[in-house]
Amino acid sequence: MKGTVGQLGEFGLIREMTSRLTATEAVRLGPGDDAAVVAAPDGRVVATTDVLIEGRHFRRDWSTAYDVGRKAAAQNLADVAAMGAVPTVLLLGLVVPADLPAAWACELMDGLRDECQVAGAAVAGGDVVRGDTITVAVTALGDLRDRAPVTRAGARPGDVVAVTGWLGWSAAGHAVLSRGFRSPRAFVEAHRRPEPPYHAGPAAADLGATSMIDVSDGLVADLGHVAAASGVRIDLHSADIDVPSQMTEIGQAVGVDPLQWVLTGGEDHAIVATFPADTKLPARWRVIGHVHAAAAGQVTVDGAPWDKAGGWDHFGDQ
Amino acid sequence: MKGTVGQLGEFGLIREMTSRLTATEAVRLGPGDDAAVVAAPDGRVVATTDVLIEGRHFRRDWSTAYDVGRKAAAQNLADVAAMGAVPTVLLLGLVVPADLPAAWACELMDGLRDECQVAGAAVAGGDVVRGDTITVAVTALGDLRDRAPVTRAGARPGDVVAVTGWLGWSAAGHAVLSRGFRSPRAFVEAHRRPEPPYHAGPAAADLGATSMIDVSDGLVADLGHVAAASGVRIDLHSADIDVPSQMTEIGQAVGVDPLQWVLTGGEDHAIVATFPADTKLPARWRVIGHVHAAAAGQVTVDGAPWDKAGGWDHFGDQ
Repeated sequence: MKGTVGQLGEFGLIREMTSRLTATEAVRLGPGDDAAVVAAPDGRVVATTDVLIEGRHFRRDWSTAYDVGRKAAAQNLADVAAMGAVPTVLLLGLVVPADLPAAWACELMDGLRDECQVAGAAVAGGDVVRGDTITVAVTALGDLRDRAPVTRAGARPGDVVAVTGWLGWSAAGHAVLSRGFRSPRAFVEAHRRPEPPYHAGPAAADLGATSMIDVSDGLVADLGHVAAASGVRIDLHSADIDVPSQMTEIGQAVGVDPLQWVLTGGEDHAIVATFPADTKLPARWRVIGHVHAAAAGQVTVDGAPWDKAGGWDHFGDQ
Repeated sequence: MKGTVGQLGEFGLIREMTSRLTATEAVRLGPGDDAAVVAAPDGRVVATTDVLIEGRHFRRDWSTAYDVGRKAAAQNLADVAAMGAVPTVLLLGLVVPADLPAAWACELMDGLRDECQVAGAAVAGGDVVRGDTITVAVTALGDLRDRAPVTRAGARPGDVVAVTGWLGWSAAGHAVLSRGFRSPRAFVEAHRRPEPPYHAGPAAADLGATSMIDVSDGLVADLGHVAAASGVRIDLHSADIDVPSQMTEIGQAVGVDPLQWVLTGGEDHAIVATFPADTKLPARWRVIGHVHAAAAGQVTVDGAPWDKAGGWDHFGDQ
């Protein structure tokens, strides 16, 4: 694939991009018409949208187009999973400069497609327009398969707080990259391409999760949303929160308490949920805290407020 | 509402924006969680997304935030209607500069909300991020209510081509504005705020439409998509295409053949469809052409190619 998106033109680019796609049974009508038609057997559809901007949410010198596509898909698919739903499709709204290599847009599409496949979903449509800044607006849809959606508002005093997936890996990778290093590779990879545990969302719903959220802004920040919506306090037990030894080494190297990455690092899209205390949780869930009635709306760590730098603020000066 | 979006911060701005919204029965779970939950009683959902960028698709000195919201909603809701579906919800992905007045974002939301109400839909969720260029990415969902979707691919030789809604009004208004005038008001208003005939989409499906599209890029360009997808030629009869006398006057004033606005002007979101020749069409549909087998993929006017400037190319230098 040679040339820029300006040379290829709107329709040429769209043709190239859609030629990369594979469909699933849920895609009743794919790209190329006024709208897509997607199966919604439950009779309800879960829908979420997120916007990524170059220079703010990704950098072309740190991440390939393919990785940006994986990441953009992952964060939306994780939002669907965190409702207890199974992702079905993505729609892509893409802004591209005229001088962008067309290959970049096509590799972005490859990344979106492959991350969709991990989650059992497919890209069903989109829009491409020209603009100065690469902007990737992704909408994900999902099907609840007769489950009640698991919101942020259902945590109850006495519940346990449990998490599955990765915590702090993307933040540690970001710290490595921002200091000009390219390794340890596992953390850099985690920053470029998160691996949300999609299956865990619907599974948690089936296990009776009372509230659920995916960790996109940081564990403390996102549990803060649950605490506020549920009218409870969530207390985390630092002794139960695993800090990998390699992350500790990176922390020592760059002078950062690695627990801060685990507690406040976003973008790994772990799934955290509350469950009744007697729930038998599968091995991949770790109980990391409890839900309390007093001091509602707060998140504490070992009973005290966590006062270090908070979660990712998309309006902050990162 | 005072201050900039930077002063209000991400969560403050989202709170202000969502406080403007009204819900419908279709919104089972609105903004504030990982994802919205939307009724999809048909068991399928129609989904489409479009991106608008400041300076390219709208100008703040020509259109208010409210009008941009109406227009962004309209073009997506029209895409849903043109499949034969009833719009249910919108999701908004919004990029805003930190120095943008927060009131602008809130008035945009008012416009999205009010245009949704016209179509029986509601805003169900979204994402707001900071960036240099105002970018409005809208996704619309809709319900087919047991209808088969009406695609671009079903036009058959012998069908009539019929249109309902406005043609060329937005383009005439654009011509007026780009020459520094603010009147005639009706055309300027049409450019700022299209009025798609949403109800006509599902109605056309019920009348047996064989293909359908909304006119977003221009009548000839959009019928070109139908001709290509259906493998037919579409011939328009210029004598049956109404050019309002006021549009003729504007054309004389600015030196443009007004038929060009009618044939190639986009963004009014009229709905054009093909029907079996014996279909009894309601009064608001005008038959403007016929479908032929020979010279498939072409659109002709009175039997000859329409060789003047084509439809709106989003990658062109407009």
